[in-house]
Amino acid sequence: MPDQLGPPLPQPLFGRVAIIGLGLIGSSLARVARRKGLAKTIVAIDLSDAVRARVAELGIADEVAETPEAGVRDADLVILCVPVGANATVAAVIGPHLKTGAVMSDVGSVKASVIANVTPYLRPDISLVPAHPVAGTEFSGPDAGFATLFVNRWCILTPPDGTDPAATEKVRAFWSAAGSNVEIMSATHHDLVLAITSHVPHLIAFNIVGTAAHLEQVTNSEVIKFSAGGFRDFTRIAASDPTMWRDVFLNNKDAVLDMLGRFNDDLAALRGMVERSDGDGLFDLFTRTRAIRRGIIDIGQETQKADFGRLPAGSDESQ
Amino acid sequence: MPDQLGPPLPQPLFGRVAIIGLGLIGSSLARVARRKGLAKTIVAIDLSDAVRARVAELGIADEVAETPEAGVRDADLVILCVPVGANATVAAVIGPHLKTGAVMSDVGSVKASVIANVTPYLRPDISLVPAHPVAGTEFSGPDAGFATLFVNRWCILTPPDGTDPAATEKVRAFWSAAGSNVEIMSATHHDLVLAITSHVPHLIAFNIVGTAAHLEQVTNSEVIKFSAGGFRDFTRIAASDPTMWRDVFLNNKDAVLDMLGRFNDDLAALRGMVERSDGDGLFDLFTRTRAIRRGIIDIGQETQKADFGRLPAGSDESQ
Repeated sequence: MPDQLGPPLPQPLFGRVAIIGLGLIGSSLARVARRKGLAKTIVAIDLSDAVRARVAELGIADEVAETPEAGVRDADLVILCVPVGANATVAAVIGPHLKTGAVMSDVGSVKASVIANVTPYLRPDISLVPAHPVAGTEFSGPDAGFATLFVNRWCILTPPDGTDPAATEKVRAFWSAAGSNVEIMSATHHDLVLAITSHVPHLIAFNIVGTAAHLEQVTNSEVIKFSAGGFRDFTRIAASDPTMWRDVFLNNKDAVLDMLGRFNDDLAALRGMVERSDGDGLFDLFTRTRAIRRGIIDIGQETQKADFGRLPAGSDESQ
Repeated sequence: MPDQLGPPLPQPLFGRVAIIGLGLIGSSLARVARRKGLAKTIVAIDLSDAVRARVAELGIADEVAETPEAGVRDADLVILCVPVGANATVAAVIGPHLKTGAVMSDVGSVKASVIANVTPYLRPDISLVPAHPVAGTEFSGPDAGFATLFVNRWCILTPPDGTDPAATEKVRAFWSAAGSNVEIMSATHHDLVLAITSHVPHLIAFNIVGTAAHLEQVTNSEVIKFSAGGFRDFTRIAASDPTMWRDVFLNNKDAVLDMLGRFNDDLAALRGMVERSDGDGLFDLFTRTRAIRRGIIDIGQETQKADFGRLPAGSDESQ
């Protein structure tokens, strides 16, 4: 569907855009920047020789920089697309080489920590506009990206107080052109919202897959065979990139523990309903939870097809 | 894909097959029985006037019985497709009217309880061969069913000790013809395996959706908008039929509490890793959990497409 993204912009939003880290998100950004004409020049920066070679092969960037320092020189927008734990290290390396007045952004799933960790390395003339595109798949690397990843997904910007509004506006325009709905909030609120809509769900998914994998009474082969009963849904997000997710939990500890505490309190109550055979209580909860999915489908954040539409092709025409 | 099911059998496995409860599973069974010629006559039984009328309209059964008693008379195979909490009530009604030597089966997600609850109503000449097709979607009712629902899914049979092997064999042949891989195990083991592969995953999904829905600091609108971060995956199974799931938890209490206890123990350990910033521990777990999904994809129980294949059509050709 080439029209999902619409035609290229009449003129680029930025001259040089440097993308640091060409994984799923970074490589998708490079692709959409090219497709929509968001930059005159797209520069790819990655510490991995293999990734740089692959990006050159794919041809998704105009230039592949030899070093981060060289790559950010003259860049009008620099976007960190590395695991959030690496932000400080990268900022320390590139900080001194940033162009005067450059805009710095990122795509991390945690926002307060990027501000805390990156700001010390930025001169006052650099504007930091942190961003978080709430989009992704369970795959990683430059081959996993695609230009429409951000279409109809939200991108949250968390500019710290005092950020140049013009810089925020340019980053907003960039994400809008990539197909996203842009929303601005404080980094603290972002981290709380994402703790419940993303981080704790991942923690729980990783956890139940771990539990199932080391039971004595049930073999892994049984877990795998009978996973269509519901378990397999959890394995998708539990297959996400380990480094990225390690860093998320290390960098959003307070909000994650807060939301996990609430989850645990509710689970204890639910466990109590099962223990005392409280059928009405169970029925009540199971009825209320349907409404939330309805809302997600209604605003186009989820398919309304049965089973995520993953049933064998042709199944629904098989009566 | 009409060939997913292959051609009809050369001759029916059963004369009359009575299906009690024409929801997602019962109506799918009626459809596949018709498509594959598994029965000479398919009789639909349902206590709901609306469902009976709809089944007649859809034309997925040869006969729609006026009463359960009339429907099971002369049936060679009777399949209970009602929420497991209703099995005893239905068995009490139909028991006296079953044909001599009939085979009785079901499709419930819990197996020890169906044996305990139904057996008292069956004469010694009736063979009970409990079955559980590990297949489904989040939708309910006669319109939600389709003939290929069971293709390449496992169906677990749990015949009690002393069950006529010929009866078990006929039920096995029935499910094989419906496209399933059939496995036989004890009801107790089944209930334990499904507690971890299905029941606890549902409990956790219902729970986190419930938690997210009543937070004070995060609005429902925010939960819905930013659900693509992982949360929306959980809403699918949390949208499953409330009556069915209430009954599952009421009827598999011990195994569910056992597996939930293990989940909780592991979650406490994981929470500890987050609290003390144990990055290596987190990375380790997150790496191990990837293998299980690989196994599920390898045996064809899951799509290998990114994001369950639910990305906007055309996304992967959009570079």
